[in-house]
Amino acid sequence: MAVMTVGAPVSLSRAAILAVGSELLTPLRIDTNSLHITEQLNSLGIDVVFKAVIGDNREELVHAMREVLPRVDLLVLSGGLGPTDDDVTRDAVSEVLGRPMREDEAITDRIRKRFESRGWTMPEINRRQAMVPDGAEVLPNPNGTAPGLWIEHDRGVVVLLPGPPRELKPMLAQLIDGRLRVRCGTMTLRRRVIRITGRTESHTDEALQTLYAEWNRAEVPIAATILAALGQIELHLWARCDAGPVVDSALTRAVEQVQEVLGLDAYSADGRLLEEVVGELLAERGFRIGVGESCTGGLITSRLTDVPGSSRYVDRSVVTYSNAAKTDLLDVPASMIEQHGAVSEPVAEAMADGIRSVAGVDVGIGVTGIAGPGGGTPEKPVGMVCIAAVTPSARRVRTAKFIGGREQVKYQASQAALDMIRRMLLKS
Amino acid sequence: MAVMTVGAPVSLSRAAILAVGSELLTPLRIDTNSLHITEQLNSLGIDVVFKAVIGDNREELVHAMREVLPRVDLLVLSGGLGPTDDDVTRDAVSEVLGRPMREDEAITDRIRKRFESRGWTMPEINRRQAMVPDGAEVLPNPNGTAPGLWIEHDRGVVVLLPGPPRELKPMLAQLIDGRLRVRCGTMTLRRRVIRITGRTESHTDEALQTLYAEWNRAEVPIAATILAALGQIELHLWARCDAGPVVDSALTRAVEQVQEVLGLDAYSADGRLLEEVVGELLAERGFRIGVGESCTGGLITSRLTDVPGSSRYVDRSVVTYSNAAKTDLLDVPASMIEQHGAVSEPVAEAMADGIRSVAGVDVGIGVTGIAGPGGGTPEKPVGMVCIAAVTPSARRVRTAKFIGGREQVKYQASQAALDMIRRMLLKS
Repeated sequence: MAVMTVGAPVSLSRAAILAVGSELLTPLRIDTNSLHITEQLNSLGIDVVFKAVIGDNREELVHAMREVLPRVDLLVLSGGLGPTDDDVTRDAVSEVLGRPMREDEAITDRIRKRFESRGWTMPEINRRQAMVPDGAEVLPNPNGTAPGLWIEHDRGVVVLLPGPPRELKPMLAQLIDGRLRVRCGTMTLRRRVIRITGRTESHTDEALQTLYAEWNRAEVPIAATILAALGQIELHLWARCDAGPVVDSALTRAVEQVQEVLGLDAYSADGRLLEEVVGELLAERGFRIGVGESCTGGLITSRLTDVPGSSRYVDRSVVTYSNAAKTDLLDVPASMIEQHGAVSEPVAEAMADGIRSVAGVDVGIGVTGIAGPGGGTPEKPVGMVCIAAVTPSARRVRTAKFIGGREQVKYQASQAALDMIRRMLLKS
Repeated sequence: MAVMTVGAPVSLSRAAILAVGSELLTPLRIDTNSLHITEQLNSLGIDVVFKAVIGDNREELVHAMREVLPRVDLLVLSGGLGPTDDDVTRDAVSEVLGRPMREDEAITDRIRKRFESRGWTMPEINRRQAMVPDGAEVLPNPNGTAPGLWIEHDRGVVVLLPGPPRELKPMLAQLIDGRLRVRCGTMTLRRRVIRITGRTESHTDEALQTLYAEWNRAEVPIAATILAALGQIELHLWARCDAGPVVDSALTRAVEQVQEVLGLDAYSADGRLLEEVVGELLAERGFRIGVGESCTGGLITSRLTDVPGSSRYVDRSVVTYSNAAKTDLLDVPASMIEQHGAVSEPVAEAMADGIRSVAGVDVGIGVTGIAGPGGGTPEKPVGMVCIAAVTPSARRVRTAKFIGGREQVKYQASQAALDMIRRMLLKS
């Protein structure tokens, strides 16, 4: 909650963001401004506790503001500052805070000059953009006609920013370095993301119960959330305190604790993706990799080559969709395909061996499976994928069963193959 | 406002969407589910009047629900249905609607079986997912453990959907075709998306001015928005009226008008992706395709094989990242690479010819370029990509300059290659 100090302005720690614009309530547009605003506020230790999108409707906006104002000390509104009738943000703020509007001649002048500098006459409706609620301080907008507004009230601050990102971002940057920094106290909020394979959300949660309890009691308490994504889960940790280095070292310690508990299952704690981690392991060992891909159709090699500098360890790969291609390009014996079927562990292993030998690389991966939606049988259902990996010192093959549509099966298979090679390289 | 009919259930016309999850209040994640939900509700003529994101905090969620429930007749909540303590949606709904929770044994059984089918034991905490508020109807979730819930109350309906899109989308699709369709009025809102290559946003906009004016005056007015995406632009058309067939035929006519103006640049008006359009053209002609990929690293073949049934026309492809690989696998003369450089039109063409001949397929694509961030020179800068395509009756090669990071360059190159082959196949 906001810390109130008699005689001093409210210190800001809890924020809400309201994005105003009917287009943001269609399937076509999403409010991305709030991500940027959140990142900037978080950097000052201000939490965003709520965000919402409201159409160009004064009554709805008044209602939403009345609702959210008592629950936060900083309310950021973006959009609805244009010159037309459906730009209602200024009016709504005036009504909710009980501050009558007046025209600010300096703003009118600035807007008029902006038009004149382009050889145009200012349309009368742009005067609306010069109307400001009583007591509001004007935030200049060098990139557009709508100025921003900063309004102190008895429980905190309301900030109005223009909607277009190229106008909003510089104005917010000024606030972060100026008015907001001096008003937010010394609190710092930091986050870490740990990416995890080989465990479900609930198994990870169970394994971390003891740590959660410890973090809860700690001097700098650490909060955690687990998020399931396709082919992996993410553990988000965050903490806040009034000394940046203290938060950092608390989070670093927490990450180490998680790594101790989860072992190899925690593959990254610094934002790196699985393909980056695998790439680094290959580069460190001076290994080159090749992939024989059937059901993944090139996705594994495409992910490996998403990483800058991957030409150090990716030389070539083949997509062998047909049986003949597996025989022609990877020397998989036709008799083996005949005997075990194209989706089988022996064929996956022969593909991994094949790409290693025909490409002359150190590490080979072979993947063959049924991505669906057709092609499944009771014995070999859609989602069944055989994955093999061979390094100079080890070989592994497994059969996995993935759930989901064709693209989900492909992605999970690529994830499982990259993870298999990661674990093998770490043990070698 | 909701139309109340005594004795009959409330007809649904105004919806709000609440996305639950603290991760959606960070700079790291955005609520994209609401776009899909909005599109689906709009298709039944249901307007979305408000949307918000709330953290994993029961008190905040209870507060937001109390606030929004009286203002809409349909409230859709997504997320917060997982098994852990911070999954609070079920509890909050139970509190707000005053419906006590009970365990639904059938759900527990289903979750237990889901774990057992993978050889795991169900963790005890997953029982939480079987707790349902009194009077709630269970919406089965074939793609995850968390079932959805449908709850009638005296002023409308509350729907709880799981957060992961692969679970949410099929569940929502069932509701749209079933429970929701029978509960909304006769207003229909329909959208069409026309996907376009080979033109910028503003050139498309200019070309369509006359049509915009005509649509504006029409009996069923049609609204249009152009959205720029990577490697293509999208034209969204929508219209609303109380007779579905009338809206449909107005939109169909508008789509035809756009196609007349844009010609081959409009590649799809029914949701098909470029890889699907190319796949259909190949299948119609009985052609098989192979790709020699350098900078795209397998992405083109991966996109082609994202399409169900693509084994009809994809046989094999090769990723030739190194110069030696281009020579070994695609018979590109080493002297040609020496003379022109690996990123050059002759090499791209030789790669297309090479894959056609070594794979024995009808259509060959060759792509070589500089994806960046390193490797650029003043003469051959980052983003420069040479693309060649050869069919039984034609050949084409071009050099493109793409803007953006490594993944953006890869994607745009894959898009340009697929588009090149589409245009060649249409003319053959």
